[in-house]
Amino acid sequence: MMHPNSPHLTSWVDVPDGSDFPVQNLPFGIFSIGDGERRVGVAIGEQILDLYLVGEHGLLDVPQGELLGSLNQLFERGIEPVRQRVSELLASGSVELATVPDSGLIPQTGVSMELPFVVGDYVDFYSSEHHATNLGKMFRPGGDPLMPNWKHLPVGYHGRASTVSVSDTPVVRPAGQRPGKDGPTFGPCQRLDIELEVGFFTSKPSSLGSAIPMVDAESHIGGVVLVNDWSARDIQAWEYQPLGPFLGKSFVTTVSPWVVTMAALEPFRGAAPVQNPTPLGYLTDDSNRSLSIDLSIELNGENIGGSDFADMYWTMAQQLTHAASNGTAIKPGDLYASGTVSGPTSSECGSLIEMSKNGAEPFLLSDGSRRSFLEDGDRVVLRGRCNAPGAVSIGFGECAGQVMPARAGGTN
Amino acid sequence: MMHPNSPHLTSWVDVPDGSDFPVQNLPFGIFSIGDGERRVGVAIGEQILDLYLVGEHGLLDVPQGELLGSLNQLFERGIEPVRQRVSELLASGSVELATVPDSGLIPQTGVSMELPFVVGDYVDFYSSEHHATNLGKMFRPGGDPLMPNWKHLPVGYHGRASTVSVSDTPVVRPAGQRPGKDGPTFGPCQRLDIELEVGFFTSKPSSLGSAIPMVDAESHIGGVVLVNDWSARDIQAWEYQPLGPFLGKSFVTTVSPWVVTMAALEPFRGAAPVQNPTPLGYLTDDSNRSLSIDLSIELNGENIGGSDFADMYWTMAQQLTHAASNGTAIKPGDLYASGTVSGPTSSECGSLIEMSKNGAEPFLLSDGSRRSFLEDGDRVVLRGRCNAPGAVSIGFGECAGQVMPARAGGTN
Repeated sequence: MMHPNSPHLTSWVDVPDGSDFPVQNLPFGIFSIGDGERRVGVAIGEQILDLYLVGEHGLLDVPQGELLGSLNQLFERGIEPVRQRVSELLASGSVELATVPDSGLIPQTGVSMELPFVVGDYVDFYSSEHHATNLGKMFRPGGDPLMPNWKHLPVGYHGRASTVSVSDTPVVRPAGQRPGKDGPTFGPCQRLDIELEVGFFTSKPSSLGSAIPMVDAESHIGGVVLVNDWSARDIQAWEYQPLGPFLGKSFVTTVSPWVVTMAALEPFRGAAPVQNPTPLGYLTDDSNRSLSIDLSIELNGENIGGSDFADMYWTMAQQLTHAASNGTAIKPGDLYASGTVSGPTSSECGSLIEMSKNGAEPFLLSDGSRRSFLEDGDRVVLRGRCNAPGAVSIGFGECAGQVMPARAGGTN
Repeated sequence: MMHPNSPHLTSWVDVPDGSDFPVQNLPFGIFSIGDGERRVGVAIGEQILDLYLVGEHGLLDVPQGELLGSLNQLFERGIEPVRQRVSELLASGSVELATVPDSGLIPQTGVSMELPFVVGDYVDFYSSEHHATNLGKMFRPGGDPLMPNWKHLPVGYHGRASTVSVSDTPVVRPAGQRPGKDGPTFGPCQRLDIELEVGFFTSKPSSLGSAIPMVDAESHIGGVVLVNDWSARDIQAWEYQPLGPFLGKSFVTTVSPWVVTMAALEPFRGAAPVQNPTPLGYLTDDSNRSLSIDLSIELNGENIGGSDFADMYWTMAQQLTHAASNGTAIKPGDLYASGTVSGPTSSECGSLIEMSKNGAEPFLLSDGSRRSFLEDGDRVVLRGRCNAPGAVSIGFGECAGQVMPARAGGTN
């Protein structure tokens, strides 16, 4: 068979030009129809291949139970052989799916996408030097914008796993304590923001007390999604000293539904970022590489910015190796997000607080309105595309959310 | 039947004087024998009542599946009716268990205790004014020891759920980046500490976007355990700016195996703590109450301190209401820990960093050795007892852990 990433590979399934899901991608997700069960599917063009149905016809070498509910077990088993088999089934000339009703295909428009993994722990990093510098200048003017530890370790913290939600989950404006001249008041967040991020789900566990060397780190990573780490800047600013963000982040975190595998991303890997000073030995390895993803942010249908994931200072492998360096247990389905991806120029901002200079310079939208932070009804869509010479471009689909008004009274 | 908390209630099971587990307590846990399945048990004296076995004999009105694996489902259903039924079965005069082999009882010495809940999210608060003040004076001498937000909200952060472990899980000394004059180095933690805490597991869920009013908060709490939030002070000090503790805490968090129910703790509730300024409305309710637990710390068999949980500034209800105030989803099996419980006097320290004045004044042990922080081989046991006039005293059992040397090379 042809390599699943080969640019010469074509499919008998019709794939529109510029689709995020050509046969070279084959990302995995969980879908449901009506009140039906949650099944594993693979995106191809505008269709989903229903792997549970394909398995029922004896065409996959995977226990049927692993094709229901979540991707945790399937990714823990090792996803690349499954992707190779799906590539084989969908390749031009293959007739194996002819015995399956509708060839196992369902239009993406006819299903609900569900959270792909049961999330164990959710960790959020802060790995863009440009973002950390932009925020540091804003909040600590005059001082060094980066904390002394920033170039020695990928700064991160634990977020809330229970509110990691799939794309298109409504974003109810959170209530909380907002700072004020006469003390805090409780009410709806007035500085609701986005964070453009990229996250990875772990697939292979590590046991309590053991670490993960850099050279092994990527073997623990199952695949990559887009992440919107919605942020309530007023709540966060008041609460976060000295123990970090809590309720300013934990109301919802949105992920894109399709998990793009590390194998599918192989053509888009690049040299490791230049790091000065050289990190300590446990974070240094020749295998270290960046990943280029062209990221964009759309607000109410209008592009308002974007950045390249390759501009991150710390890599995914370094993030995971660092997170596991104290012996913590890594589980399949943990989510590790990059932190806001901002780039070196002023048009490459991954958050509204950067775009609006902390609200001092609201930016203009094409409908004539201005924004510093999000208004009720605003709909934000994150997208990501991978491009490389000689490779077929692939994408991530949408990571979307619309802001809903705060609950009455702000409390329930 | 007699009320399960009645001091007049006795059991046909022999309960030694001063036991943590008289018939008035009846805490729930998960035990296993050899490689056997994990079953729900109830502690009585030095025995465990095997609820799965009791259920097999038709003596419990609970699906058998909820008596295996974890307490999540059983507590979500509502634990008090189950505790009342167990109380009835164990009360003097009851012969219902006579048909069950060994009356359903197993010596506690013959089993392994397991993690009681599958932990969803783990949140750690910072709710002792005495502890926060002690640390503030240490790290910000001259300034106000409490941050401006501290008396307005229960400061907290998300910890790592995957490493919440049951009592007697070995505590492998973590490795990590330690600050130094010539920059950080990577190696075993040199300032390993404990934190004496009390935690509660949630039982009833809340849905994404909704809050939990104070008056309802305790109905979401299933029960209480002791928590040792082991802390690597050197790793923590270097990493925690600006996003809070991460690897300095996430190597292991120990909980006691027996979950003491809110109903069993009823006789030990007291007036709400005095709070000045009065918190905002969502954190204020007449139902707010403290809980008195006499806590103690034993190091290598020697008592080195303790405190009273009633001295906490923020209550469990306030912690949960605050955590849910932004609409985050609460799930059965979330763990919310109090933060280090320190008291008003210098002998009531809940951590070694407080006892040793940040290492400046090592304290003497009876074997002639001194400690600022933990040495390899040190064994720490936390205990808690509830006492009140007219009530039978109950306890929590042990929350124990022994420090093991760091892995070779510190990395794996």
